[in-house]
Amino acid sequence: MPPTITAFDRSPDGGKGRARDTRVRWALEEVGQPYEVRLVSFQAMKEPAHLALHPFGQIPTYEEGDLALFETGSIVLHIAERHAGLLPDDANARARAISWMFAAVNTVEPPILELVTARILESDKPWSKERLPLVMDRVRDRLKQLAARLGDADWLDGAFSAGDLMMASVLFRLRTSGILDEYPNLAAYVARGEARPAYRRAFEAQRAVNTR
Amino acid sequence: MPPTITAFDRSPDGGKGRARDTRVRWALEEVGQPYEVRLVSFQAMKEPAHLALHPFGQIPTYEEGDLALFETGSIVLHIAERHAGLLPDDANARARAISWMFAAVNTVEPPILELVTARILESDKPWSKERLPLVMDRVRDRLKQLAARLGDADWLDGAFSAGDLMMASVLFRLRTSGILDEYPNLAAYVARGEARPAYRRAFEAQRAVNTR
Repeated sequence: MPPTITAFDRSPDGGKGRARDTRVRWALEEVGQPYEVRLVSFQAMKEPAHLALHPFGQIPTYEEGDLALFETGSIVLHIAERHAGLLPDDANARARAISWMFAAVNTVEPPILELVTARILESDKPWSKERLPLVMDRVRDRLKQLAARLGDADWLDGAFSAGDLMMASVLFRLRTSGILDEYPNLAAYVARGEARPAYRRAFEAQRAVNTR
Repeated sequence: MPPTITAFDRSPDGGKGRARDTRVRWALEEVGQPYEVRLVSFQAMKEPAHLALHPFGQIPTYEEGDLALFETGSIVLHIAERHAGLLPDDANARARAISWMFAAVNTVEPPILELVTARILESDKPWSKERLPLVMDRVRDRLKQLAARLGDADWLDGAFSAGDLMMASVLFRLRTSGILDEYPNLAAYVARGEARPAYRRAFEAQRAVNTR
């Protein structure tokens, strides 16, 4: 039995690939594992059946036999630990790849989430215009450091890993802000991620759901 | 050779245990592993030697033989994978504990970091007073869901795990805001974390540095 993941019945982005199921689909495509998808509506996400799977009422979730997981990072790590293709064999390199996974979600994503909030949830507030540059500068602080570390390498620590999958996925969110283009090596890094056949398949699969 | 972690030479909180080295010290104390500490100044954190260890110029880092790691979550996971005491033996329970680690840093911590930013970095802005309730409500949205899941259990998924260590550490940041007291079961959960002998030792060790 292939695992089952959940995804939005209708993604708020209309299929641009920003919903987090894309990250899990991408990981499954990288390791060549088939999967099933169960679509959930916004209403169903807040009901007891889904909350039993995901305490915060979000997608994606991952069910495989007796195991039920939530949180994209842990689902991607679970897939990466069980199938070849997303983590190096060397124990130290493996631990470093996992560091990049946590850096993606705990150091780089928080200011990006704050920017998304400022641009969407607080766009009609009186402080919106004056505050936005502050929030954008906090994102730039992180991107500058990330760009300095990446340099002219293709990936963050040697071969492509789950760390790159998570970092590129977090950076995808910046595409419409224009900020990413201020860091050409990061823009190229994201483009390399998007060009991977596994990403293309994941993207097309989520797009098909949202344009049906 | 015990591992070496880095910590603030002078923590901005003066030793209240909110700096992230406390999380790593706590993990090391839970598994009974000795460790060395190298203190770094704010200036040194931004210099090449430290940036080589931590691309984002923060603490803590973790060095053990040839291995150098950054990001608290990945350091705690590394410790938990190599020593008994922080992850269950059962594979499924282990994966669920890791889900809670990611939930702590990617779902619960971002709105808390936003609250810290609003209260500290933006406290002098003209929008500060009007905006703060919005930010606090975003924290409450998460705490309400977390409180519903925890119910009257002691820990998030059976026995205490690295997931609880990370979640309690994230919630510690709310102590001065008063919000935590609105959720008595979460306040009690945090108190159970703080009462653990390993946490006490970790707390005292970081306090000794900051009150020397």
